[in-house]
Amino acid sequence: MATAQQNTSPKSEIAQFGADQPLRLDSGHSLSPLTIAYQTYGTLDDRRANAVLVCHALTGDQHAANTHPVTGKPGWWELMIGPGKPIDTNRYFVICANVVGGCMGTTGPGSINPATGKAYALDLPVITIRDMVRAQAMLLDHLAIPDLFCVIGGSMGGMQVLQWAASYPERVFSAIPIATAARHTSQNIAFHEVGRQAVMADPDWCGGNYIEQGKSPRKGLAVARMAAHITYLSEEALSRKFGRNLQDRDSLTFGFDADFQVESYLRHQGMTFVDRFDANSYLYMTRAMDYFDLAADYGGSLASAFTGTRTRFCIISFTSDWLFPTGGNRQVVHALNASGASVSFVEIESEKGHDTFLLDEPELHATIRGFLKAGERVRGLQAGAHAKERAKERAKERDSRGGQP
Amino acid sequence: MATAQQNTSPKSEIAQFGADQPLRLDSGHSLSPLTIAYQTYGTLDDRRANAVLVCHALTGDQHAANTHPVTGKPGWWELMIGPGKPIDTNRYFVICANVVGGCMGTTGPGSINPATGKAYALDLPVITIRDMVRAQAMLLDHLAIPDLFCVIGGSMGGMQVLQWAASYPERVFSAIPIATAARHTSQNIAFHEVGRQAVMADPDWCGGNYIEQGKSPRKGLAVARMAAHITYLSEEALSRKFGRNLQDRDSLTFGFDADFQVESYLRHQGMTFVDRFDANSYLYMTRAMDYFDLAADYGGSLASAFTGTRTRFCIISFTSDWLFPTGGNRQVVHALNASGASVSFVEIESEKGHDTFLLDEPELHATIRGFLKAGERVRGLQAGAHAKERAKERAKERDSRGGQP
Repeated sequence: MATAQQNTSPKSEIAQFGADQPLRLDSGHSLSPLTIAYQTYGTLDDRRANAVLVCHALTGDQHAANTHPVTGKPGWWELMIGPGKPIDTNRYFVICANVVGGCMGTTGPGSINPATGKAYALDLPVITIRDMVRAQAMLLDHLAIPDLFCVIGGSMGGMQVLQWAASYPERVFSAIPIATAARHTSQNIAFHEVGRQAVMADPDWCGGNYIEQGKSPRKGLAVARMAAHITYLSEEALSRKFGRNLQDRDSLTFGFDADFQVESYLRHQGMTFVDRFDANSYLYMTRAMDYFDLAADYGGSLASAFTGTRTRFCIISFTSDWLFPTGGNRQVVHALNASGASVSFVEIESEKGHDTFLLDEPELHATIRGFLKAGERVRGLQAGAHAKERAKERAKERDSRGGQP
Repeated sequence: MATAQQNTSPKSEIAQFGADQPLRLDSGHSLSPLTIAYQTYGTLDDRRANAVLVCHALTGDQHAANTHPVTGKPGWWELMIGPGKPIDTNRYFVICANVVGGCMGTTGPGSINPATGKAYALDLPVITIRDMVRAQAMLLDHLAIPDLFCVIGGSMGGMQVLQWAASYPERVFSAIPIATAARHTSQNIAFHEVGRQAVMADPDWCGGNYIEQGKSPRKGLAVARMAAHITYLSEEALSRKFGRNLQDRDSLTFGFDADFQVESYLRHQGMTFVDRFDANSYLYMTRAMDYFDLAADYGGSLASAFTGTRTRFCIISFTSDWLFPTGGNRQVVHALNASGASVSFVEIESEKGHDTFLLDEPELHATIRGFLKAGERVRGLQAGAHAKERAKERAKERDSRGGQP
C-alpha cells in the first residue's frame, strides 16, 4: 500500500534522532529512535529569521505545497503557500513536518518498533499535541533555526500553534491559530469516539495488528471519515452544493444505493481517504486532539499559558464553522487579552464551514498576508525580502530586454 | 433475541390485513399480508371523536406510555401521555402504532416474507413516510374511527403528522408536528448515510440476511446509533452534562479506553440500542426520512399540500435543535400561512437539542396542553370530557365521605 511505503521510506526530507535524543512524551514514555519527515519551501535568509512553521491538521501531512506522493494531487495548502502567495516562499522559509503519530514518514503506529521488529500498532504510546510540538522543536534544533518568524495552522494545526506559543514563547515571533480551540469540546470528543469505534468495529482492524496480519480496516476507516467529513462542512454548504439532487438518475430508486449526490460524495470521501491514511494513525491523531486542554497544564487558567508572552497573535475563525465555532476561538482571544498579549482577531464570514481554512477564501488570504507583512517590518525582515525581490525584478528586466528586439 | 420475538409475536394489540387489503406502497409494490401492532390508552368517547394518534420517531415504537416489553423501561412519552398529562388519557383515546418497516410487531424487514417463508430482509420494498401514514389510516378504518381529534409526533413522527394533514385533511381536526421538516436536508441525509454504511460495513450484517444466518450486526448498528445520538443533543447540553469530565478515573490513561464520560455515555447508548432495535429496520427508517419531501408530491409547492385545509396546526421547534432547526419548521409555517390554514407556531427556548421533545420541558407540555384544550371546545369534546371528570369527582367525593368519620 502506497501509504505504508510512505510510512517507512517517505518521499520527504528526513531528520533522524537516535538513542541519545529520545522524544520525551507526556505519557511518561520516551520515543526512540525518532524520525521526522518534513518538507521545506523557499530559502532561509542569512539571519535565519524568516522561518515559517506550518502545522498540519488531523488528516493532513507535510506535503502542504507540493504534489502528494500517494494521491498525485496538489498539496493541501498550495493556495496559501508559494511564490507570491500569502505565505510567500519568495520571502519566507516554510517548513511543514508530519506530526509524531502520523503516517507519512514521521514515527507513528505504522513505524517499526525496535523492541519487536514489527510495526508499533497500539504499542506506540499515546501522543499529545505537546509531544508533536516538542518533536517539531527538535527538528528546528536539527535545522539550526533558533526561532520562528511565524507558526501557523488550522484545526489540529491551530492547537499546535497555541502549544508552541505556550511552550516556547521565546521561539515564536508570531502565531496564527485558525479555526481551533484551547480545549477539545465534549461534542468533538464524541465525534472522534464514533470514528474510533467505527475503525475498531472492523474485524480487519485485528486489535490494531492489521499490518502484521496483512489486512486493512478499510470499511471502518471509511465510515469514520464519512462521519468526520460532515463535521468539516456546514449545512449551508451541503444544501447549496448538493441539496436533494439525485446522483446520475431521474428519480428515486427505492433502494439503498446512493440515490442522492450527497451520499455518493460521502462514499467517495470515505473510499479515497483509506488509500492515503493509516487507521491506527487516525486513532492516535483523534486522541491527541481529545486530550488537548491547554489551560489544564497551567492550573486551569488559559491566560497563564501566555503570561509575559511577546508573541504577536492573529486568531481567525469562520462564521459557519460548527466544529470549532467562533466562541472557542474567542476564548483564546480573551485569555491573550488577559495576559496582555498583542492579538488581532478576525471572524471571517463564510458558509463553507470548518474546511474554509483549506479553501479559496480571499478574506482569509488577505488577513494572513497582511499580518505577515506587518510582522516583517517589526522583525526587520523587510529589507532582505525587498533586496531579493529587487534582484529578481532586475533579472526579469534583463530577460525581458534580451528577448525583445 | 427479545426484539426478534417482538417482531413476530409482539406484546401489543394487533390488526391483521389479509390478501384482500394489501398496503399500496409508493414504490409501486404492495405489502400483504400486513400486520400493525399498536397500543391504546384512554377510552374512545361515544361520538368516536376524541382519538389522538401519536406518531413515533425513527427508533421509537408503539410503546409510548407503557412499560417497554424488551427494555422494561417506561414508555418513551410517558411524560406526555397519561391521566392528567398534556395528552390526557382521561379525556382522549390515544393510539400509537409501530410504523411499517419497524421492528416491534408491524410488518418490517424482520417479518416473514410469505413468498419465501424467511424474513424479508432487504426484499421488503422501501417504505416511505406516506406508506406509514397510509397503513395508519387502514388501522383507523379497522378501529372504526372516522377522524382524529389530533395527530401528533416529533422528528420522523412530525413528518408523519404533516403527511397525515396533506393526505387525509378531512380526517385530521388538529395536527402538532414537533421538531421536524417537510423535507430531509442534505446534511441529515448525510448523517443517515453514515449510519447505513456503518451497519452495512459490519460483516455480521451478511448482506442483510443476518437473521437467516443467525448473526447480528451489533457493532455496526452501535456505531450508527452513536453517530446519530450526537445529532439528537446539542453542544451546550453535552458541555453542561459531560464537559471534559473523566469516567471513573482521576487522570487521563493515555490509551483508547473511554477516558471521558461522554465516550462512556455514547458507548452505552450504542450497546443498549442494539438490544432493542433491528439493524435492517434502521436502514428502512432512515431511508423513509431521507425520501421525505412533501412539496415534491405537490408540484414543488409545499403550500399546495395544504390547500383548503381546515386542520388546526400547532408547529413547535426548539432553539438548540440543529438536526431539525427552527428554519425548517418555519418553512412549514410559511406554507400553511400561504394556504390560509389556522396555525400557531412556538419556538421553545431549550438547550437540550432535538431530543427536547422527549424530555421534561414545561413549555412544551404547556403548549400542547393548551392547544389541545382549545381544540376540545371547537370540536365540542368539552361537554363529554367534563361530564366524565364530573362523574369522577362525584365518585371521589363519595369515596372520601365513606372513608372519613
